[in-house]
Amino acid sequence: MPKINAERLLKDLRDLRAFGAVENGVVRPAFSDTDMESRRWLAERFADAGLDATMDGVGNVLGRSRKPGPALIIGSHSDTQPRGGWLDGALGVIYGLEAARACAEDPATAHLAIDAVSWQDEEGNYLGCIGSRSWCGSLNSVDEAAAVGRDGTPLATRLVEVGLSDTPRLSMEEGRYAGYLEAHIEQGAYLEDAGELIGVVTAIVGIRGMSIKCHGAQNHAGTTTMARRKDAATAMFEIAHRINQEFPKLANERTVWTIGQATIEPGASSIIPGYAELALQFRDSDVKLLDAFEGIVADLVAAVNARGVIRVEAERSRPPIIPSIMDSGLQEHIAQAAEVSAPGKWRHMPSAAGHDPMVIHEKLPCAMLFIPSIDGISHDFAEDSHDSDIVIGGQVMADAAASILLEAS
Amino acid sequence: MPKINAERLLKDLRDLRAFGAVENGVVRPAFSDTDMESRRWLAERFADAGLDATMDGVGNVLGRSRKPGPALIIGSHSDTQPRGGWLDGALGVIYGLEAARACAEDPATAHLAIDAVSWQDEEGNYLGCIGSRSWCGSLNSVDEAAAVGRDGTPLATRLVEVGLSDTPRLSMEEGRYAGYLEAHIEQGAYLEDAGELIGVVTAIVGIRGMSIKCHGAQNHAGTTTMARRKDAATAMFEIAHRINQEFPKLANERTVWTIGQATIEPGASSIIPGYAELALQFRDSDVKLLDAFEGIVADLVAAVNARGVIRVEAERSRPPIIPSIMDSGLQEHIAQAAEVSAPGKWRHMPSAAGHDPMVIHEKLPCAMLFIPSIDGISHDFAEDSHDSDIVIGGQVMADAAASILLEAS
Repeated sequence: MPKINAERLLKDLRDLRAFGAVENGVVRPAFSDTDMESRRWLAERFADAGLDATMDGVGNVLGRSRKPGPALIIGSHSDTQPRGGWLDGALGVIYGLEAARACAEDPATAHLAIDAVSWQDEEGNYLGCIGSRSWCGSLNSVDEAAAVGRDGTPLATRLVEVGLSDTPRLSMEEGRYAGYLEAHIEQGAYLEDAGELIGVVTAIVGIRGMSIKCHGAQNHAGTTTMARRKDAATAMFEIAHRINQEFPKLANERTVWTIGQATIEPGASSIIPGYAELALQFRDSDVKLLDAFEGIVADLVAAVNARGVIRVEAERSRPPIIPSIMDSGLQEHIAQAAEVSAPGKWRHMPSAAGHDPMVIHEKLPCAMLFIPSIDGISHDFAEDSHDSDIVIGGQVMADAAASILLEAS
Repeated sequence: MPKINAERLLKDLRDLRAFGAVENGVVRPAFSDTDMESRRWLAERFADAGLDATMDGVGNVLGRSRKPGPALIIGSHSDTQPRGGWLDGALGVIYGLEAARACAEDPATAHLAIDAVSWQDEEGNYLGCIGSRSWCGSLNSVDEAAAVGRDGTPLATRLVEVGLSDTPRLSMEEGRYAGYLEAHIEQGAYLEDAGELIGVVTAIVGIRGMSIKCHGAQNHAGTTTMARRKDAATAMFEIAHRINQEFPKLANERTVWTIGQATIEPGASSIIPGYAELALQFRDSDVKLLDAFEGIVADLVAAVNARGVIRVEAERSRPPIIPSIMDSGLQEHIAQAAEVSAPGKWRHMPSAAGHDPMVIHEKLPCAMLFIPSIDGISHDFAEDSHDSDIVIGGQVMADAAASILLEAS
């Protein structure tokens, strides 16, 4: 089985970090000058590994193996959050590169076809997952036309500026791939807390967002008796607190929900709120549970409306993201590889954050592996993982890739 | 007993409205050019009524009766909110003028000493109740030095601009006054709802403001399990909802409380709130009840802190305003006068809004009467009262004043 080169893997990760490094983190949002430079550097690394390297018209960097299929495509994204961690995305990209190199270097696996990839804009500077969407043929032209960067630049303008507007876009080659693999830092502390080294992802959780809008009547906070009030905030507080009481009754160990925004209008201490609004988000890999949570919200809203004082509406604030189930056969290969490199120190687990496989699993079997995040910190300059954990994850990825392709061919 | 001149009363109110009239309301903030013009006009009206009229160094306009005491001083403020109602303040000022005129015109009451007054800046453009505070000797030089108008002009600058910086300030003449009377629109709908015409104010309620600050830890809303979270907003919602459940158990019919502001940081749907803050205000005429409410808040905060997850602090966000108890003897005169002009259609009631008697009652016995506000609207151009209600209130004020002074002399 292939043996990864730990020094090379870590050096490539650190070299990639140099593009946009700030403190321990990275500022390398999609389509920034720094991002484009790093993508050209990545294409060179892919070429050095014997892959046919291309940057396509949306910024995806693909390193295509010259070996015939069945192939695996392995990677992640190399763009970052506005103040991102150095491994978020980068880890999975360099694992793809290292898996391709390690397999090529071992006579027993040198015939296997491993394509490496860095998708563009997973983090949604202009349009989340635009790279994987484009490659899968699921990029909507309306969404693309409306895409604007965080700095206000339209995507179309930025594509001209970075010289990509006339560059062809790559599409998935039908029939070539046995699947897509992606590694990522956990972005939570579940593995670290359990003293484990590898997470075999079962599914990327579904996400639903709801907006709960309470309509009352603004009035003077001194002269309006309690009996006459239509205080929109009282309904908001009641519903928010009751959500936090009712959701745990149905939740499983990994279900999460968050009320991250609350607005009161007009927002003055001497004025009775005429309007109040909550943003609720919840995530789980079980659609039935997500439906049940929506039902709880509907019941709480109905109970307030039945009193006839405050009028409350609850509606979805975003298109629901359905759970993305990872391929069980591919998971099994990763699990076996994990048991070799980290015996007894791995587990199956869902991903609570979104990743490109949410897009790709509609076209290809997908699987993901996680390595531990120190203190579970993510989307922050302080995000980090131990070198030894990075190396073990890289070996698991290479082993799993070889195992999958040896079985498939 | 004195008989007011309804036409004259209503004409003076409408003439005063002309200074700053916008739609049905008035824009006449304290020390504005419009306010200063209206105060000079008022001084002329006081002089026409046979009173010795003076505008003092903070803009108070006093019409002093030439009759020996014991005297009553009757009035209110003629400055307005930035977008104020036409009767808020003005009504009480013109009632004072009309009471003085009506008593002077009746041989049975012509010997009574009634001073009319318009206090300056009750509405707090530069410094709330600066006029009555100055007259009562309770104006703090530190507060005055720090006073700045809503337009950013320091008070000292504005006093120079309006020509008052070298004008003497009037002080209460010790021994002259049997008390201070003020009429005001109710600013609520309690009288209107009950079909009543006069409110005899028992007390101006005390006001307390509290700030409830919840400290948690910001984190990723997908990857942080519920068990590991320190979501500051969950504590905020719990405390807010529990306040709304617990306060009614102690409240009386006129107690009010309001959570008018809620802040969540950072305020994004995918980020667990690290900080959340509530602004709570409550009003009642019973200090013991206000203390008990603070106790409820302290208990709720302690219960959350005892769990050791979210750290909550509750503190007073403003100096407490203590309830101002109106003089029971003066109340009785107003009640008797109300029973004459509005038999069976008056009641004792607290004032839920603040007024100059909060300052003056520390020096003189005070009483207030309310007339109905249409739909309870206040601090809005749409504020209004029926002419017939204005006239009845004016007669009750004149009758009460005569009755008080006849008894005192």
